[in-house]
Amino acid sequence: MAYFDAASGAPLHPVARQALLASLDEGWADPARLYKEGRRARLLLDAAREAAADAVGCRPDELTFTSSGSRAVHTGIAGALAGRRRVGRHLIVSAVEHSSVLHSAEVHEAGGGTVTQVPVDRGGAVAVASYEAALRPDTALACLQSANHEVGTEQPVAKVARVCREADVPLLVDAAQSLGWGPVAGDWSLLAASAHKWGGPSGVGLLVVRKGVRFAAQGPVDERESGRAAGFENIPAIVAAVASLRAVRAEAAVQAVRLRELTELIRARVPRLVQDVEVVGDPARRLPGIVTFSCLYVDGETLLHELDREGFSVSSGSSCTSSTLTPSHVLKAMGVLSEGNVRVSLPPGTPEEEVERFLSVLPGAVAAVREKLGAPAATTPARPGGEALVVDALGKRCPIPVIELAKVIGDVPVGGTVRVLSDDEAARLDIPAWCQMRGQEYVGEEPADAGSAYLVRRLS
Amino acid sequence: MAYFDAASGAPLHPVARQALLASLDEGWADPARLYKEGRRARLLLDAAREAAADAVGCRPDELTFTSSGSRAVHTGIAGALAGRRRVGRHLIVSAVEHSSVLHSAEVHEAGGGTVTQVPVDRGGAVAVASYEAALRPDTALACLQSANHEVGTEQPVAKVARVCREADVPLLVDAAQSLGWGPVAGDWSLLAASAHKWGGPSGVGLLVVRKGVRFAAQGPVDERESGRAAGFENIPAIVAAVASLRAVRAEAAVQAVRLRELTELIRARVPRLVQDVEVVGDPARRLPGIVTFSCLYVDGETLLHELDREGFSVSSGSSCTSSTLTPSHVLKAMGVLSEGNVRVSLPPGTPEEEVERFLSVLPGAVAAVREKLGAPAATTPARPGGEALVVDALGKRCPIPVIELAKVIGDVPVGGTVRVLSDDEAARLDIPAWCQMRGQEYVGEEPADAGSAYLVRRLS
Repeated sequence: MAYFDAASGAPLHPVARQALLASLDEGWADPARLYKEGRRARLLLDAAREAAADAVGCRPDELTFTSSGSRAVHTGIAGALAGRRRVGRHLIVSAVEHSSVLHSAEVHEAGGGTVTQVPVDRGGAVAVASYEAALRPDTALACLQSANHEVGTEQPVAKVARVCREADVPLLVDAAQSLGWGPVAGDWSLLAASAHKWGGPSGVGLLVVRKGVRFAAQGPVDERESGRAAGFENIPAIVAAVASLRAVRAEAAVQAVRLRELTELIRARVPRLVQDVEVVGDPARRLPGIVTFSCLYVDGETLLHELDREGFSVSSGSSCTSSTLTPSHVLKAMGVLSEGNVRVSLPPGTPEEEVERFLSVLPGAVAAVREKLGAPAATTPARPGGEALVVDALGKRCPIPVIELAKVIGDVPVGGTVRVLSDDEAARLDIPAWCQMRGQEYVGEEPADAGSAYLVRRLS
Repeated sequence: MAYFDAASGAPLHPVARQALLASLDEGWADPARLYKEGRRARLLLDAAREAAADAVGCRPDELTFTSSGSRAVHTGIAGALAGRRRVGRHLIVSAVEHSSVLHSAEVHEAGGGTVTQVPVDRGGAVAVASYEAALRPDTALACLQSANHEVGTEQPVAKVARVCREADVPLLVDAAQSLGWGPVAGDWSLLAASAHKWGGPSGVGLLVVRKGVRFAAQGPVDERESGRAAGFENIPAIVAAVASLRAVRAEAAVQAVRLRELTELIRARVPRLVQDVEVVGDPARRLPGIVTFSCLYVDGETLLHELDREGFSVSSGSSCTSSTLTPSHVLKAMGVLSEGNVRVSLPPGTPEEEVERFLSVLPGAVAAVREKLGAPAATTPARPGGEALVVDALGKRCPIPVIELAKVIGDVPVGGTVRVLSDDEAARLDIPAWCQMRGQEYVGEEPADAGSAYLVRRLS
């Protein structure tokens, strides 16, 4: 088995495992107690906090341990917004943030706040100027991820931090995907991260609030973790998380070079091995281990099953994955193809042979899915004659509407149009993406009796 | 070393340790993923949920895992209050709930809700009639612990659940202290618990919401744990927690008999070994392992240090402990002496010899503290003559004001009064408690230029 989903969660690092075992014996007691077991637990917790602060680049008293990365984000956003309530209730987020940020933004909006979503380019990156333009006198907080979790694109955090600082607006950085690779550069104000992304155990997040940042923790709190994370501290897991962070940091430079080579290999080879593939994400400013591509005429969930059968555990932001029927908000914001989406995120130490084997089985897996779905061959010769065509794909799920479109495009004369009727949310993203990949013109969307009509003009 | 603070947190049960180790290898992946590692994690999570539900006596889909017992309480109370917002915003809690419940109540009050605190008797128990009387047409939720964490008193949960059910008000039970001993009887609606109280790892709580209970999770949530606990599930810790619950339950009947004998021994012997001690908590309806007593003329923190030096790790609800200078809200609500408070909570398997050794060192430890503080001998003969006396204890911390009072009472003629001036919060509790223990009359409190004046009349 090859586990290629490190961006979801990494298996426990051997160093973390060792630290966890040792601190199960030493760190189980209440660190608030004055007796021996409590003092021992307190020492472990203090040492872990210092080491974590050192890795982040902050003061120990600026760092609190939370019960997860999501919780760190929720607590950080709510506390920063409340702390600056007098300034205003405007929140800025990028369109490609992790769901924990976007859920917080939804809650803020439902409570009467306003939210600006900063768009991204086709590579998934925000423009510094867009953040600058979004800043207002009533902006309480801006949020930006250090790097995207679905496509690996790195964001210009240091520059965005500078424009925020100039406007006296705190910037919260979701560093979940990048903290294992190195500290976040720039003059940010708050930072959130998640230990199981860097090989620590589940159940540990970090929240850093720089001195001087107005912060008012929301909801019931207690005296633990500076009143920012209620409940008994999970010291063995915290110790293991920090041990793992130090261990992956020590290997980071070497692993970054290795993984970058491997993902470069995938980026370069996949489009040659598989027809009708779009590799997404910024080709240069990206995390070492993540590479994402989408395959036309493919149902992502079925492809994941095929790859799982071949022994590869990968993830998908495709509209067709089981948990949700809407396309990934990240791919949508980037305006790229969402169907047949595959995210490969390599854990440190991945052997090259596994990547080679992945590349050798991928074409067959994609072909198998396309065959099942009756996808058209890559090129269909144009037939003469024909007129404005209507493809009724109502009730059909991604990637069927695009497959139906591809099947008939050859019947349309150059200059002629096709109307695709679809009530599938993914079609809105994937039909324009197909046009771009195929060099056809996407004319636009019109309301229809049921769903929408997507107009495509044949150019070649 | 003898660890006698199981009510704060128990060391990891050997079965939990084994389960944790096994599931670190099997359960680290994202249970929402469809690939092999994800499916394996999902299987572990589902099995743990079924086993936990079985131990609680609920349906698996009524039970969610949270990141701590405090978090389970916070989420449960906020969700139940929001779910019944149309009914009203009245919340009922007992005066001796865990701080996580009282903090939730404070947040509710700060947000415009109303809270009724139901009083307890001198043994720490609520009266069913008091809950019945507190119920109103706009009551959204009532909360009651299954047993008290400081004094071990069991609450009449089943009967309170019945009166709540008759009024169509859901009852949330904080079962943190009792779930390891057995399921909570009665027709309650919500239940919260904490794994590290029964020998599970830190970082795992349980929240049960019965079908039919209106519940609206508050704050940002995601698709995990029925939308009631955001963030990656901590499956190894969950598996370990549930394994431990099953293990302690299997031993519960035998351990309950043993621990009850040992705490009975302490209850009976301490007042004979140490003068001026009040054993607090219900003598009969109590948890097997907890016994609490307060020592007159003793500073709790210093006593804890003495006992720690002798190798005993115990806790204190005393006003004199380091983290807070106000007396324990539990002892205050019970109206018992708070100074020199010691809570002994025995973990299952405590050997009788350790308890005997504790009883052998306790008198010396108390005497050492009293000597340091210059406490009066147990009996001071009355001196003739004298008139209304004033003791100025301003600026002096517990237990000094009571010690000063005890030193002069012999100078007061029977029928005469003493005014104790004090600005220490604990004096309000401890001077009346001293009067009760000494058979003197507590006349009352009056405002003074600084602090308060406490009037005591000598009766004998």
